[in-house]
Amino acid sequence: MKIIFEKNKLLSAIAPMLGVVSSKNTIAAIEGIKISTKGSFCELAAFDNEKGIKNTVEAKIEEEGSYIINAGKLYQIVRVLPDGEVTITVNDRNITEISSGLSCFELHALPGDDFPVLPELSGETGFTVGQAELHEMINKVMFAVAVNDPKPMLNGVYFKINGSKITAVSCDGQRLALREKICDIDNIVESSELQMEFILPGKSLSELTKLLSDDEEKKVKIILGRKHVIFLIEDLIFFTRMIDSNYIEYERFIPKTNRIFVKAESESIIKCLERAMLVTEEKTMGQMKSHLKCSFSDKKLAFSSVSVSGKFYDEISIEKDGDDIEIGFNCKYFMDAMRCVDTDYIKLSMSTPLMSMLIEPAEKKPDDTFIYLVLPVRM
Amino acid sequence: MKIIFEKNKLLSAIAPMLGVVSSKNTIAAIEGIKISTKGSFCELAAFDNEKGIKNTVEAKIEEEGSYIINAGKLYQIVRVLPDGEVTITVNDRNITEISSGLSCFELHALPGDDFPVLPELSGETGFTVGQAELHEMINKVMFAVAVNDPKPMLNGVYFKINGSKITAVSCDGQRLALREKICDIDNIVESSELQMEFILPGKSLSELTKLLSDDEEKKVKIILGRKHVIFLIEDLIFFTRMIDSNYIEYERFIPKTNRIFVKAESESIIKCLERAMLVTEEKTMGQMKSHLKCSFSDKKLAFSSVSVSGKFYDEISIEKDGDDIEIGFNCKYFMDAMRCVDTDYIKLSMSTPLMSMLIEPAEKKPDDTFIYLVLPVRM
Repeated sequence: MKIIFEKNKLLSAIAPMLGVVSSKNTIAAIEGIKISTKGSFCELAAFDNEKGIKNTVEAKIEEEGSYIINAGKLYQIVRVLPDGEVTITVNDRNITEISSGLSCFELHALPGDDFPVLPELSGETGFTVGQAELHEMINKVMFAVAVNDPKPMLNGVYFKINGSKITAVSCDGQRLALREKICDIDNIVESSELQMEFILPGKSLSELTKLLSDDEEKKVKIILGRKHVIFLIEDLIFFTRMIDSNYIEYERFIPKTNRIFVKAESESIIKCLERAMLVTEEKTMGQMKSHLKCSFSDKKLAFSSVSVSGKFYDEISIEKDGDDIEIGFNCKYFMDAMRCVDTDYIKLSMSTPLMSMLIEPAEKKPDDTFIYLVLPVRM
Repeated sequence: MKIIFEKNKLLSAIAPMLGVVSSKNTIAAIEGIKISTKGSFCELAAFDNEKGIKNTVEAKIEEEGSYIINAGKLYQIVRVLPDGEVTITVNDRNITEISSGLSCFELHALPGDDFPVLPELSGETGFTVGQAELHEMINKVMFAVAVNDPKPMLNGVYFKINGSKITAVSCDGQRLALREKICDIDNIVESSELQMEFILPGKSLSELTKLLSDDEEKKVKIILGRKHVIFLIEDLIFFTRMIDSNYIEYERFIPKTNRIFVKAESESIIKCLERAMLVTEEKTMGQMKSHLKCSFSDKKLAFSSVSVSGKFYDEISIEKDGDDIEIGFNCKYFMDAMRCVDTDYIKLSMSTPLMSMLIEPAEKKPDDTFIYLVLPVRM
């Protein structure tokens, strides 16, 4: 194989793949990028058996072939080579030469056949949506995705598309995040109503968000395959397996009959939680964490916390409807949810110190809303 | 003790002290900042028995006192408090309240008497020099300071001031860095000639460089105490113990009778070394490092290296005077020196593959020069 690339084109094609290749794996092939010639183009693929990227780069193909080159090394080498043309040559003994001008690196490649077979990247249903809209939606529920939970669906985000409404839900057993938004959606099957649901792994989504632009003009096409979801982001194809399971019946966890309702300014709460974290997240004595006590009384919400190293107290003004209540939280969980709030005022709903608290916009907009739920801790 | 500070003034006084306090020490006092009232001012001090900072902050003193507060915690707390006035109160039982508005933190202080006694911060000889000049000088010799070498002087930088000429030297046994510069110096004892030499610990110098501005107008006053050197940087006093030892006779290590002289472009060498590092600093198989072979032949310098994971080759044009030579280096050591070169062209001088190589400016300016020396490795 002998291919001549323009250095910067090659570099920007490899860069997004670094997050997808598996590192420290026992199978060397999936630490690599598969480079294959396809007519006058060069196809690049990275796949860790869960998520992957496929991409094409314009290049001068002097000799055809298909080889796997370690992704990290390839990127580092191309990055430091002089600007201009970069030539990648692989000989019969898999010895790979990456050169530009007089600079030359030599390393070993693996034959392209060793690469895992990419899943079938096609499907009949799907839609097009703004990259920025999808990006924001994922960012604001990611914090509540479980990591290595034995219930596989909790390690992902549940998406439900119903016409132009997208719902995204995550839940790790201690908290739940739900966003719902009417988006500017184009159904690719125009004759039928858009109705689909799927669960995508958290790890895949955090790679996906790196590829999604914040430009409101740019679109991403999402296609539902048999076992995979395929994202077409400009010339790049990102794909990830779905978590093959039903999602938890999350609506059952959202209390419907709360008796205490509080309206408060989001920013004031965030500031207080930030301060409280200095005491509650104290780690000097091992992994000691103390809880945050929230006392809602009359027109005042008082935060307090005591740990081995000190005490904290702060208060803010609120509007309350219902009884006074004292309720304890894991400060970080409360904070994670508050950081994803995007309204100036929020509504907190509670009923007892043992039942979860709901965080919602103070004034609900039907086309863009959220519900965050945080379980209290026993004090 | 009760003192009212303006938050941002307090914060900018504490911030530079964080690098000076000792962390994870068995003596809690030296992890702290000593806060003492002095008339209408408040004096802050941090000292880890080697280096220290003394500073004063304008404040409203409502009750006098002297206490030690953990530096890290104090900084974190003040940083997240609301803007405006911050009140620090310490009661008889050493309980410290740090508050602003309704926000309040409580922690323990130690009595001021537990703080180590600061050294006598006075001396009769000294000089004033540009902060930027001193900063640059230190930055360009720091890489060759030894860490925990049994010879204490190697863990510091040797400074020699002779009239308006400052010489700074560092050496870790494998390489040596020497900078010499005519600076704009004001002697504080005008009647006599400025003649002094001292060795300052590397760790103190890396804190000092954080305090020195790059503004060419700003000056620093340096005073030689009995066992300490004192730096007056605007309102702040930084001091560090000297390493009480004679410096090595470094001039003996600088070869005077080289036979091979090479002129080369600095940037081209740096680019090649950067590439070579990908192969020589390979760390996949434990801590394996391979050396860099430099072959000087005729008008060409060829770099090559082989490691378990691959090969590297590159070459640049040079002007050479003397025999051809093949010489091996620790690539990182060569690179560290080259990164501190500030001339477009350099002169390399060698005699045999077993004797150290000198890196000097291609055209020597008597008022601003450097010599870097790198020991070769056996190939």
